[in-house]
Amino acid sequence: MSIASHALPYIRSISPYVPGKPITQLSREMGIPPEKIIKLASNENPLGMSPLARRAIEAALAGAERYPDQFELITALAERHGVAAEQIVLGNGSNDLLDLVARVFLSAGRSSVAAEYAFAIYELVTDITGAETIIAPARHYGHDPATMLAAIRPDARVLWIANPNNPTGTFLPYADLRTFIERIPPHVVVVLDEAYSEYLLPTERVESIAWIRDFPNLVVTRTFSKIYGLAGLRVGYAVAQAEVADLMNRVRQPFNVGNLGLAAALAALDDHLFLAESYTLNRQGMEQLISGLKQLGLEHIPSHGNFITVAVADGAAINHSLLKEGVIVRPLGGYGMPNHLRVTIGRETENRRFLAALEKALHA
Amino acid sequence: MSIASHALPYIRSISPYVPGKPITQLSREMGIPPEKIIKLASNENPLGMSPLARRAIEAALAGAERYPDQFELITALAERHGVAAEQIVLGNGSNDLLDLVARVFLSAGRSSVAAEYAFAIYELVTDITGAETIIAPARHYGHDPATMLAAIRPDARVLWIANPNNPTGTFLPYADLRTFIERIPPHVVVVLDEAYSEYLLPTERVESIAWIRDFPNLVVTRTFSKIYGLAGLRVGYAVAQAEVADLMNRVRQPFNVGNLGLAAALAALDDHLFLAESYTLNRQGMEQLISGLKQLGLEHIPSHGNFITVAVADGAAINHSLLKEGVIVRPLGGYGMPNHLRVTIGRETENRRFLAALEKALHA
Repeated sequence: MSIASHALPYIRSISPYVPGKPITQLSREMGIPPEKIIKLASNENPLGMSPLARRAIEAALAGAERYPDQFELITALAERHGVAAEQIVLGNGSNDLLDLVARVFLSAGRSSVAAEYAFAIYELVTDITGAETIIAPARHYGHDPATMLAAIRPDARVLWIANPNNPTGTFLPYADLRTFIERIPPHVVVVLDEAYSEYLLPTERVESIAWIRDFPNLVVTRTFSKIYGLAGLRVGYAVAQAEVADLMNRVRQPFNVGNLGLAAALAALDDHLFLAESYTLNRQGMEQLISGLKQLGLEHIPSHGNFITVAVADGAAINHSLLKEGVIVRPLGGYGMPNHLRVTIGRETENRRFLAALEKALHA
Repeated sequence: MSIASHALPYIRSISPYVPGKPITQLSREMGIPPEKIIKLASNENPLGMSPLARRAIEAALAGAERYPDQFELITALAERHGVAAEQIVLGNGSNDLLDLVARVFLSAGRSSVAAEYAFAIYELVTDITGAETIIAPARHYGHDPATMLAAIRPDARVLWIANPNNPTGTFLPYADLRTFIERIPPHVVVVLDEAYSEYLLPTERVESIAWIRDFPNLVVTRTFSKIYGLAGLRVGYAVAQAEVADLMNRVRQPFNVGNLGLAAALAALDDHLFLAESYTLNRQGMEQLISGLKQLGLEHIPSHGNFITVAVADGAAINHSLLKEGVIVRPLGGYGMPNHLRVTIGRETENRRFLAALEKALHA
């Protein structure tokens, strides 16, 4: 008997998450020089990092041999959102926070509810605990409150909502979302993943964190990996009622966020200019891509994020053609969408290059 | 019923890890300016970070908005240790790796074995899975193979060995360690935590990673947080047989190590000059502290790490006096050693200041 046969059976059946292909990997695989590759595969900020964050990292280098202290960033986030510091949990990206919720509330014999085409990590973090993920059929590629409510079994303890959703870009208006949450039983933790909410139109936005007062089962997660441009520094946070945050903190690794990430996030939070530029670039790029896709005669799912998911005849084939051109996007076969590709909205030149490579691929 | 009452019962009874008090926290609590505080509480490298690592971080800043790619560091580590890349697992510090082993092999109804006075995280990561930690009585504050073997129940799946051990500094010579591992049943995963092994005398060292060929149940963990001076960047690694590494990678968060940590670790690995300086400073500081403690008439546990654990009459009282002097060490009440303090070996001036503050505290 091998040692692996003594691993927990539900761990042995897990398929690991497949991330966007790094530029370095494509370069190794196809011998394309890295500078000739564009990556529009992981919804990263095409403007890079907030300059204030960069300066903060440089200043923090002197103490990087020390174990990190989360106090300052937690204090700033609590103040920003008008909540107590005890309501904030920091994560090594949002992924870590989703994992913490799963570890606190899920185990074999329990279940969580996720929407079809929702972010893959919800199912993965559930599976790792031995619990079961119930997938609720989507409506127009988005979350359908009716099917999600129907999927709540007596053993359900967590329900995952991505709003906007990745990888489809769909969005449940906040009024509908609130009605949805009101109908979720109070013993089911509602994780509202708002990784992309900073890309919403001002008129679409609602400060959902204020709802935590009304819903003790609500956990809102945010990330510094998208509009803040800090994906490589691994910082996210959750806001919840203090007793839920306390449980998450018991499971959290004490040093789950690094020094430089803490410093960068603290500075990025106040870099309003960079946020505004990033938002505007995304709106412009969205128009550019929509117009380009239309010219190519392709349908896309209307998106509220920093990416667009487009329908093609054969996602795998088109993806392969794009890779040969040095353009990395995200194929969605793993999401049960083999005929869709998700493209991150890049800089004007990157979007143009993607559209040209796509046109070439379509006519190959 | 509160939402917390629906959390898993074993999570609700966890006590979180208490880390060393950060300089910033003592400054806030006692109004002492940070520059007047010395921290000898978390076994950090008093020389700071490897200069090569620092340069690598600065070079990596340009791509820090990207999700990280672990390929290069894994390749370098595999080459360094003469193993396959598939045998390496990267962690957000060693803590993450210990957690991954626990999640793969432990759950309610299983147990792990740890030594009395061993690193607290072993018990914590076990508890979080719902499994039980069996604590084997120590011998002279160190791991006792006899009691640990006796503590292996039929439901045991993991056995934790810290060598050298933190917080006591004790060390099991490798010949004894190998005999010990030979007697552990092959279905029990042996985690050999070597966070401090770089501080061993050259004559004491053995490349335990070579043993993995002989023991399919062996997992060796190392960290960049100690002699490499990268505690704030959160990088550790495990080496195991490929099938064990594969299971750990299924549970691992895909982006558990940040870009800057990867770049820093890769550079630090080859900074032989910095490692040699750090080693020498530790040896000198060890002599300085041993001599100073002797003059104060205090007993200590012979240490093989970058810290010394010293016996005082009342650990909490002496610790409080030291804090008032701006000197942070680690009280060990949480380890069942209320009359011991653990002091990290610092620079010459820091050691001197600690000894002076300790003398003052003893006569207070």
